[in-house]
Amino acid sequence: MPKVTIAQNILAANDSIALHIKQSLAARGIRVLNIMSSPGAGKTTLLERTIERLRGQLGIGVIEGDIETSADAERIEARGAETVQINTRGACHLEAHMIRDALQQVDLERIELLIIENIGNLVCPADWNLGEDMRAVIVSTSEGDDKPAKYPQMFASSQILIVNKIDLLPYVDYNVEKVKRQALAINPHLRLFEMSCRTGEGLDTWCDWLLSFARSDK
Amino acid sequence: MPKVTIAQNILAANDSIALHIKQSLAARGIRVLNIMSSPGAGKTTLLERTIERLRGQLGIGVIEGDIETSADAERIEARGAETVQINTRGACHLEAHMIRDALQQVDLERIELLIIENIGNLVCPADWNLGEDMRAVIVSTSEGDDKPAKYPQMFASSQILIVNKIDLLPYVDYNVEKVKRQALAINPHLRLFEMSCRTGEGLDTWCDWLLSFARSDK
Repeated sequence: MPKVTIAQNILAANDSIALHIKQSLAARGIRVLNIMSSPGAGKTTLLERTIERLRGQLGIGVIEGDIETSADAERIEARGAETVQINTRGACHLEAHMIRDALQQVDLERIELLIIENIGNLVCPADWNLGEDMRAVIVSTSEGDDKPAKYPQMFASSQILIVNKIDLLPYVDYNVEKVKRQALAINPHLRLFEMSCRTGEGLDTWCDWLLSFARSDK
Repeated sequence: MPKVTIAQNILAANDSIALHIKQSLAARGIRVLNIMSSPGAGKTTLLERTIERLRGQLGIGVIEGDIETSADAERIEARGAETVQINTRGACHLEAHMIRDALQQVDLERIELLIIENIGNLVCPADWNLGEDMRAVIVSTSEGDDKPAKYPQMFASSQILIVNKIDLLPYVDYNVEKVKRQALAINPHLRLFEMSCRTGEGLDTWCDWLLSFARSDK
Protein backbone atom coordinates (compact mmCIF):
# COMPACT_ATOMS: atom_id res chain seq x y z
CA MET A 1 0.00 0.00 0.00
CA PRO A 2 1.46 3.43 -0.86
CA LYS A 3 2.86 5.41 2.02
CA VAL A 4 2.06 8.96 3.03
CA THR A 5 5.26 10.72 2.02
CA ILE A 6 5.25 13.69 4.37
CA ALA A 7 8.05 13.11 6.84
CA GLN A 8 7.03 13.25 10.48
CA ASN A 9 9.87 15.61 11.42
CA ILE A 10 8.68 18.22 8.91
CA LEU A 11 5.20 18.06 10.45
CA ALA A 12 6.66 18.30 13.96
CA ALA A 13 8.62 21.43 13.00
CA ASN A 14 5.41 22.88 11.56
CA ASP A 15 3.48 22.06 14.75
CA SER A 16 6.07 23.89 16.81
CA ILE A 17 5.74 27.10 14.74
CA ALA A 18 1.93 26.71 14.83
CA LEU A 19 1.92 26.48 18.62
CA HIS A 20 3.98 29.65 18.85
CA ILE A 21 1.52 31.49 16.56
CA LYS A 22 -1.46 30.26 18.58
CA GLN A 23 0.06 31.30 21.90
CA SER A 24 1.20 34.73 20.76
CA LEU A 25 -2.17 35.55 19.19
CA ALA A 26 -4.05 34.22 22.24
CA ALA A 27 -1.96 36.54 24.40
CA ARG A 28 -3.36 39.45 22.36
CA GLY A 29 -6.92 38.14 22.59
CA ILE A 30 -7.04 37.19 18.91
CA ARG A 31 -8.83 33.98 17.92
CA VAL A 32 -7.96 32.08 14.75
CA LEU A 33 -10.17 30.16 12.31
CA ASN A 34 -8.71 28.02 9.47
CA ILE A 35 -11.20 27.53 6.61
CA MET A 36 -10.68 24.64 4.20
CA SER A 37 -12.61 23.10 1.27
CA SER A 38 -12.42 21.85 -2.31
CA PRO A 39 -11.76 24.50 -4.95
CA GLY A 40 -14.95 26.47 -5.49
CA ALA A 41 -16.98 25.34 -2.48
CA GLY A 42 -17.38 28.99 -1.45
CA LYS A 43 -14.65 29.95 1.01
CA THR A 44 -14.04 33.44 -0.38
CA THR A 45 -17.73 34.21 -0.82
CA LEU A 46 -18.41 33.11 2.77
CA LEU A 47 -15.68 35.49 3.91
CA GLU A 48 -17.12 38.37 1.87
CA ARG A 49 -20.62 37.87 3.28
CA THR A 50 -19.30 37.40 6.84
CA ILE A 51 -17.16 40.54 6.77
CA GLU A 52 -20.03 42.62 5.38
CA ARG A 53 -22.37 41.43 8.11
CA LEU A 54 -19.94 41.86 11.00
CA ARG A 55 -18.53 45.22 9.91
CA GLY A 56 -18.44 47.57 12.89
CA GLN A 57 -19.05 44.67 15.30
CA LEU A 58 -15.85 42.65 15.03
CA GLY A 59 -12.31 43.42 13.85
CA ILE A 60 -11.54 40.70 11.30
CA GLY A 61 -8.17 40.07 9.66
CA VAL A 62 -7.80 37.65 6.75
CA ILE A 63 -4.86 35.67 5.41
CA GLU A 64 -5.69 34.47 1.89
CA GLY A 65 -3.92 31.38 0.62
CA ASP A 66 -3.76 30.77 -3.12
CA ILE A 67 -1.35 29.03 -5.43
CA GLU A 68 -1.42 31.99 -7.81
CA THR A 69 -3.22 35.36 -8.17
CA SER A 70 -4.29 37.96 -5.64
CA ALA A 71 -7.88 37.94 -6.88
CA ASP A 72 -9.32 36.63 -3.60
CA ALA A 73 -7.38 39.09 -1.44
CA GLU A 74 -8.72 41.91 -3.61
CA ARG A 75 -12.28 40.64 -3.14
CA ILE A 76 -11.82 40.49 0.64
CA GLU A 77 -10.03 43.82 0.93
CA ALA A 78 -12.88 45.44 -1.00
CA ARG A 79 -15.14 44.42 1.90
CA GLY A 80 -12.98 46.39 4.30
CA ALA A 81 -11.01 43.70 6.13
CA GLU A 82 -7.29 43.76 6.82
CA THR A 83 -6.01 41.21 4.24
CA VAL A 84 -2.68 39.57 3.41
CA GLN A 85 -2.25 37.32 0.37
CA ILE A 86 0.04 34.28 0.39
CA ASN A 87 0.85 32.76 -3.03
CA THR A 88 2.34 29.32 -2.60
CA ARG A 89 3.56 29.10 -6.25
CA GLY A 90 2.53 25.50 -6.64
CA ALA A 91 2.34 24.19 -3.08
CA CYS A 92 -0.98 22.55 -2.25
CA HIS A 93 -1.47 23.76 1.34
CA LEU A 94 -0.46 26.52 3.73
CA GLU A 95 2.23 25.87 6.34
CA ALA A 96 2.74 27.58 9.69
CA HIS A 97 5.91 29.42 8.64
CA MET A 98 3.92 31.12 5.86
CA ILE A 99 1.39 32.34 8.44
CA ARG A 100 4.17 33.55 10.74
CA ASP A 101 5.66 35.60 7.89
CA ALA A 102 2.28 36.93 6.75
CA LEU A 103 1.42 38.07 10.28
CA GLN A 104 4.30 40.58 10.05
CA GLN A 105 2.06 42.51 7.66
CA VAL A 106 -1.11 42.44 9.79
CA ASP A 107 -1.97 45.29 12.17
CA LEU A 108 -2.81 43.06 15.13
CA GLU A 109 -4.10 45.99 17.17
CA ARG A 110 -7.08 46.23 14.83
CA ILE A 111 -8.31 42.63 14.88
CA GLU A 112 -10.05 40.24 17.26
CA LEU A 113 -10.49 37.39 14.80
CA LEU A 114 -8.00 36.11 12.23
CA ILE A 115 -9.48 33.99 9.45
CA ILE A 116 -7.11 31.94 7.30
CA GLU A 117 -8.45 30.83 3.92
CA ASN A 118 -6.45 27.75 3.00
CA ILE A 119 -5.65 26.44 -0.50
CA GLY A 120 -8.66 24.80 -2.20
CA ASN A 121 -7.86 21.15 -1.49
CA LEU A 122 -9.65 18.55 0.66
CA VAL A 123 -6.49 16.52 1.25
CA CYS A 124 -3.16 18.09 2.21
CA PRO A 125 -4.28 21.10 4.32
CA ALA A 126 -5.66 18.67 6.93
CA ASP A 127 -2.11 17.68 7.94
CA TRP A 128 -0.77 21.17 8.58
CA ASN A 129 -1.57 23.09 11.75
CA LEU A 130 -1.46 26.86 11.26
CA GLY A 131 -1.94 27.96 14.86
CA GLU A 132 -5.73 27.96 14.55
CA ASP A 133 -8.15 27.62 17.47
CA MET A 134 -10.71 26.07 15.18
CA ARG A 135 -10.99 24.49 11.73
CA ALA A 136 -14.00 24.74 9.46
CA VAL A 137 -14.47 22.55 6.40
CA ILE A 138 -16.96 23.67 3.74
CA VAL A 139 -18.71 21.25 1.39
CA SER A 140 -21.14 22.37 -1.28
CA THR A 141 -24.29 20.69 -2.52
CA SER A 142 -22.98 20.61 -6.10
CA GLU A 143 -19.89 18.52 -5.35
CA GLY A 144 -21.47 15.16 -4.49
CA ASP A 145 -22.62 13.84 -1.12
CA ASP A 146 -19.78 11.35 -0.60
CA LYS A 147 -17.02 13.73 0.48
CA PRO A 148 -16.75 12.90 4.23
CA ALA A 149 -16.23 9.18 3.50
CA LYS A 150 -13.74 9.89 0.72
CA TYR A 151 -11.68 12.57 2.51
CA PRO A 152 -12.05 11.49 6.16
CA GLN A 153 -8.96 13.21 7.60
CA MET A 154 -10.32 16.63 6.66
CA PHE A 155 -13.54 15.95 8.59
CA ALA A 156 -11.81 14.22 11.50
CA SER A 157 -9.52 17.20 12.09
CA SER A 158 -12.19 19.94 11.84
CA GLN A 159 -14.57 21.27 14.48
CA ILE A 160 -17.05 22.87 12.08
CA LEU A 161 -18.79 21.54 8.96
CA ILE A 162 -20.52 24.02 6.68
CA VAL A 163 -22.82 22.72 3.94
CA ASN A 164 -22.94 25.59 1.44
CA LYS A 165 -25.01 26.25 -1.73
CA ILE A 166 -28.24 24.86 -0.28
CA ASP A 167 -30.03 27.05 -2.86
CA LEU A 168 -28.91 24.48 -5.50
CA LEU A 169 -30.57 21.51 -3.76
CA PRO A 170 -33.53 21.39 -6.19
CA TYR A 171 -31.14 21.01 -9.14
CA VAL A 172 -28.58 18.48 -7.89
CA ASP A 173 -28.58 14.93 -6.52
CA TYR A 174 -27.40 15.65 -3.00
CA ASN A 175 -28.57 14.18 0.29
CA VAL A 176 -27.69 16.61 3.10
CA GLU A 177 -28.69 14.10 5.78
CA LYS A 178 -26.33 11.49 4.31
CA VAL A 179 -23.45 13.98 4.40
CA LYS A 180 -24.18 14.90 8.02
CA ARG A 181 -24.43 11.24 8.98
CA GLN A 182 -21.12 10.36 7.25
CA ALA A 183 -19.37 13.35 8.78
CA LEU A 184 -20.67 12.73 12.30
CA ALA A 185 -19.67 9.05 12.08
CA ILE A 186 -16.09 10.25 11.49
CA ASN A 187 -16.28 13.10 14.00
CA PRO A 188 -19.28 13.24 16.38
CA HIS A 189 -18.17 16.64 17.74
CA LEU A 190 -18.61 18.55 14.48
CA ARG A 191 -20.74 21.69 14.72
CA LEU A 192 -22.98 21.86 11.64
CA PHE A 193 -24.12 24.86 9.62
CA GLU A 194 -26.21 24.87 6.44
CA MET A 195 -26.24 27.97 4.29
CA SER A 196 -26.36 29.63 0.91
CA CYS A 197 -23.86 32.43 0.58
CA ARG A 198 -25.70 33.40 -2.60
CA THR A 199 -29.16 33.90 -1.07
CA GLY A 200 -27.98 34.65 2.47
CA GLU A 201 -29.90 31.76 4.06
CA GLY A 202 -28.18 30.55 7.22
CA LEU A 203 -25.72 33.45 7.38
CA ASP A 204 -27.27 35.08 10.46
CA THR A 205 -26.85 31.88 12.47
CA TRP A 206 -23.26 31.54 11.28
CA CYS A 207 -22.36 35.16 12.08
CA ASP A 208 -23.94 34.97 15.53
CA TRP A 209 -21.90 31.90 16.29
CA LEU A 210 -18.70 33.43 14.88
CA LEU A 211 -19.15 36.52 17.03
CA SER A 212 -19.55 34.41 20.15
CA PHE A 213 -16.52 32.29 19.17
CA ALA A 214 -14.36 35.38 18.65
CA ARG A 215 -15.35 36.79 22.04
CA SER A 216 -15.25 33.58 24.07
CA ASP A 217 -12.59 32.63 26.62
CA LYS A 218 -10.91 35.99 26.89
CA MET B 1 8.54 32.73 -1.02
CA PRO B 2 7.63 29.15 -0.02
CA LYS B 3 9.23 26.42 -2.05
CA VAL B 4 7.57 23.45 -3.72
CA THR B 5 8.73 20.65 -1.48
CA ILE B 6 8.58 17.70 -3.87
CA ALA B 7 12.17 16.73 -4.56
CA GLN B 8 13.16 16.62 -8.23
CA ASN B 9 14.70 13.15 -7.93
CA ILE B 10 11.43 11.65 -6.71
CA LEU B 11 9.63 13.13 -9.71
CA ALA B 12 12.37 11.86 -12.05
CA ALA B 13 12.00 8.34 -10.65
CA ASN B 14 8.25 8.62 -11.16
CA ASP B 15 8.73 9.80 -14.76
CA SER B 16 10.90 6.79 -15.47
CA ILE B 17 8.21 4.34 -14.27
CA ALA B 18 5.57 6.32 -16.16
CA LEU B 19 7.54 6.07 -19.40
CA HIS B 20 7.82 2.33 -18.97
CA ILE B 21 4.03 2.05 -18.45
CA LYS B 22 3.33 4.21 -21.50
CA GLN B 23 5.65 2.20 -23.74
CA SER B 24 4.46 -1.22 -22.63
CA LEU B 25 0.77 -0.27 -23.02
CA ALA B 26 1.44 1.36 -26.42
CA ALA B 27 3.07 -1.88 -27.54
CA ARG B 28 -0.26 -3.60 -26.82
CA GLY B 29 -2.25 -0.92 -28.64
CA ILE B 30 -3.74 0.43 -25.40
CA ARG B 31 -4.16 4.19 -25.03
CA VAL B 32 -4.26 5.88 -21.63
CA LEU B 33 -6.28 8.86 -20.38
CA ASN B 34 -5.65 10.48 -16.96
CA ILE B 35 -8.72 12.35 -15.64
CA MET B 36 -8.26 15.01 -12.97
CA SER B 37 -10.49 17.56 -11.20
CA SER B 38 -11.56 19.03 -7.89
CA PRO B 39 -13.52 16.71 -5.61
CA GLY B 40 -17.04 16.43 -6.95
CA ALA B 41 -16.59 17.95 -10.42
CA GLY B 42 -17.98 14.76 -11.93
CA LYS B 43 -15.14 12.40 -12.83
CA THR B 44 -16.89 9.20 -11.77
CA THR B 45 -20.22 10.19 -13.29
CA LEU B 46 -18.48 11.01 -16.59
CA LEU B 47 -16.91 7.55 -16.51
CA GLU B 48 -20.26 5.88 -15.83
CA ARG B 49 -21.97 7.67 -18.70
CA THR B 50 -19.02 7.08 -21.06
CA ILE B 51 -18.82 3.35 -20.34
CA GLU B 52 -22.58 2.93 -20.81
CA ARG B 53 -22.46 4.66 -24.19
CA LEU B 54 -19.39 2.88 -25.53
CA ARG B 55 -20.34 -0.60 -24.31
CA GLY B 56 -19.81 -3.09 -27.12
CA GLN B 57 -17.83 -0.55 -29.13
CA LEU B 58 -14.67 -0.10 -27.05
CA GLY B 59 -12.94 -2.20 -24.39
CA ILE B 60 -12.43 0.19 -21.47
CA GLY B 61 -10.42 -0.52 -18.32
CA VAL B 62 -10.52 1.82 -15.33
CA ILE B 63 -8.10 2.47 -12.49
CA GLU B 64 -9.93 4.32 -9.73
CA GLY B 65 -7.87 6.47 -7.39
CA ASP B 66 -9.33 7.39 -4.01
CA ILE B 67 -7.92 8.19 -0.62
CA GLU B 68 -10.41 5.86 1.04
CA THR B 69 -13.41 3.70 0.05
CA SER B 70 -14.12 1.55 -2.99
CA ALA B 71 -17.43 3.29 -3.68
CA ASP B 72 -16.32 4.68 -7.05
CA ALA B 73 -14.87 1.39 -8.29
CA GLU B 74 -18.18 -0.27 -7.40
CA ARG B 75 -20.07 2.36 -9.41
CA ILE B 76 -17.80 1.82 -12.43
CA GLU B 77 -17.78 -1.97 -12.20
CA ALA B 78 -21.57 -1.92 -12.14
CA ARG B 79 -21.40 -0.38 -15.64
CA GLY B 80 -19.46 -3.38 -16.88
CA ALA B 81 -15.89 -2.08 -17.13
CA GLU B 82 -12.76 -3.85 -15.90
CA THR B 83 -11.96 -1.83 -12.73
CA VAL B 84 -9.16 -1.72 -10.18
CA GLN B 85 -9.34 0.48 -7.07
CA ILE B 86 -6.28 2.17 -5.60
CA ASN B 87 -6.69 3.58 -2.06
CA THR B 88 -3.85 5.96 -1.27
CA ARG B 89 -4.64 6.08 2.49
CA GLY B 90 -4.02 9.79 2.78
CA ALA B 91 -1.85 10.60 -0.22
CA CYS B 92 -3.21 13.41 -2.38
CA HIS B 93 -2.34 12.10 -5.87
CA LEU B 94 -1.63 8.90 -7.75
CA GLU B 95 1.97 7.97 -8.61
CA ALA B 96 3.26 5.83 -11.45
CA HIS B 97 4.30 2.93 -9.20
CA MET B 98 0.70 2.63 -8.00
CA ILE B 99 -0.46 2.34 -11.62
CA ARG B 100 2.26 -0.24 -12.39
CA ASP B 101 1.07 -2.36 -9.46
CA ALA B 102 -2.63 -1.93 -10.30
CA LEU B 103 -2.02 -3.02 -13.89
CA GLN B 104 -1.07 -6.47 -12.59
CA GLN B 105 -4.77 -6.92 -11.87
CA VAL B 106 -6.08 -5.73 -15.26
CA ASP B 107 -6.79 -8.18 -18.08
CA LEU B 108 -4.98 -6.20 -20.78
CA GLU B 109 -6.25 -8.50 -23.53
CA ARG B 110 -9.74 -7.12 -22.99
CA ILE B 111 -9.06 -3.39 -23.21
CA GLU B 112 -8.16 -0.78 -25.81
CA LEU B 113 -8.45 2.26 -23.57
CA LEU B 114 -7.30 2.64 -19.97
CA ILE B 115 -8.85 5.50 -18.05
CA ILE B 116 -7.24 6.55 -14.77
CA GLU B 117 -9.42 8.53 -12.38
CA ASN B 118 -7.02 10.52 -10.24
CA ILE B 119 -7.59 11.76 -6.66
CA GLY B 120 -9.96 14.75 -6.47
CA ASN B 121 -7.42 17.56 -6.25
CA LEU B 122 -6.56 20.40 -8.66
CA VAL B 123 -3.00 20.74 -7.38
CA CYS B 124 -0.72 17.77 -6.75
CA PRO B 125 -1.83 15.32 -9.49
CA ALA B 126 -0.52 17.78 -12.12
CA ASP B 127 3.08 17.00 -11.12
CA TRP B 128 2.87 13.21 -11.44
CA ASN B 129 2.99 11.46 -14.79
CA LEU B 130 1.20 8.13 -14.77
CA GLY B 131 2.15 6.91 -18.25
CA GLU B 132 -0.87 8.59 -19.86
CA ASP B 133 -1.10 9.61 -23.51
CA MET B 134 -3.47 12.38 -22.61
CA ARG B 135 -4.70 14.33 -19.59
CA ALA B 136 -8.20 15.71 -19.15
CA VAL B 137 -9.11 18.25 -16.47
CA ILE B 138 -12.78 18.67 -15.55
CA VAL B 139 -14.18 21.87 -14.09
CA SER B 140 -17.83 22.27 -13.14
CA THR B 141 -20.07 25.31 -13.40
CA SER B 142 -20.84 25.23 -9.69
CA GLU B 143 -17.24 25.65 -8.54
CA GLY B 144 -16.53 29.22 -9.65
CA ASP B 145 -15.14 30.50 -12.96
CA ASP B 146 -11.66 31.42 -11.69
CA LYS B 147 -10.08 27.95 -11.56
CA PRO B 148 -7.67 28.11 -14.54
CA ALA B 149 -6.03 31.29 -13.21
CA LYS B 150 -5.82 29.91 -9.68
CA TYR B 151 -4.57 26.40 -10.53
CA PRO B 152 -2.56 27.06 -13.73
CA GLN B 153 -0.28 24.02 -13.64
CA MET B 154 -3.25 21.67 -13.94
CA PHE B 155 -4.44 23.44 -17.09
CA ALA B 156 -0.94 23.88 -18.52
CA SER B 157 -0.24 20.15 -18.27
CA SER B 158 -3.57 18.91 -19.72
CA GLN B 159 -4.63 18.44 -23.32
CA ILE B 160 -8.39 18.40 -22.66
CA LEU B 161 -10.64 20.73 -20.67
CA ILE B 162 -14.16 19.55 -19.87
CA VAL B 163 -16.68 22.05 -18.50
CA ASN B 164 -19.26 19.86 -16.75
CA LYS B 165 -22.65 20.56 -15.12
CA ILE B 166 -23.75 23.05 -17.80
CA ASP B 167 -27.34 22.20 -16.74
CA LEU B 168 -26.68 24.31 -13.61
CA LEU B 169 -25.77 27.48 -15.54
CA PRO B 170 -29.15 29.17 -14.91
CA TYR B 171 -28.64 28.81 -11.13
CA VAL B 172 -25.00 29.80 -10.64
CA ASP B 173 -22.77 32.80 -11.36
CA TYR B 174 -20.46 31.22 -13.92
CA ASN B 175 -19.06 32.63 -17.15
CA VAL B 176 -18.08 29.73 -19.43
CA GLU B 177 -16.40 32.07 -21.92
CA LYS B 178 -14.22 33.54 -19.18
CA VAL B 179 -13.10 30.05 -18.14
CA LYS B 180 -12.24 29.10 -21.72
CA ARG B 181 -10.37 32.38 -22.21
CA GLN B 182 -8.36 31.92 -18.99
CA ALA B 183 -7.58 28.29 -19.80
CA LEU B 184 -6.54 28.99 -23.41
CA ALA B 185 -4.30 31.85 -22.27
CA ILE B 186 -2.43 29.30 -20.15
CA ASN B 187 -2.57 26.53 -22.75
CA PRO B 188 -3.71 27.42 -26.29
CA HIS B 189 -3.70 23.75 -27.34
CA LEU B 190 -6.48 22.64 -24.98
CA ARG B 191 -9.32 20.73 -26.62
CA LEU B 192 -12.61 21.93 -25.10
CA PHE B 193 -15.77 20.02 -24.30
CA GLU B 194 -18.93 21.31 -22.59
CA MET B 195 -21.36 18.84 -21.14
CA SER B 196 -23.86 17.81 -18.49
CA CYS B 197 -23.36 14.25 -17.31
CA ARG B 198 -26.74 14.61 -15.60
CA THR B 199 -28.82 15.49 -18.70
CA GLY B 200 -26.51 13.86 -21.27
CA GLU B 201 -25.89 17.08 -23.21
CA GLY B 202 -22.51 17.03 -24.94
CA LEU B 203 -21.84 13.35 -24.22
CA ASP B 204 -22.20 12.18 -27.83
CA THR B 205 -19.49 14.61 -28.97
CA TRP B 206 -17.25 13.47 -26.12
CA CYS B 207 -17.75 9.76 -26.82
CA ASP B 208 -17.15 10.21 -30.55
CA TRP B 209 -13.89 11.96 -29.82
CA LEU B 210 -12.86 9.36 -27.22
CA LEU B 211 -13.49 6.55 -29.67
CA SER B 212 -11.31 8.20 -32.31
CA PHE B 213 -8.60 8.89 -29.69
CA ALA B 214 -8.58 5.25 -28.58
CA ARG B 215 -8.29 4.03 -32.15
CA SER B 216 -5.80 6.60 -33.46
CA ASP B 217 -2.11 5.98 -34.22
CA LYS B 218 -2.17 2.23 -33.96
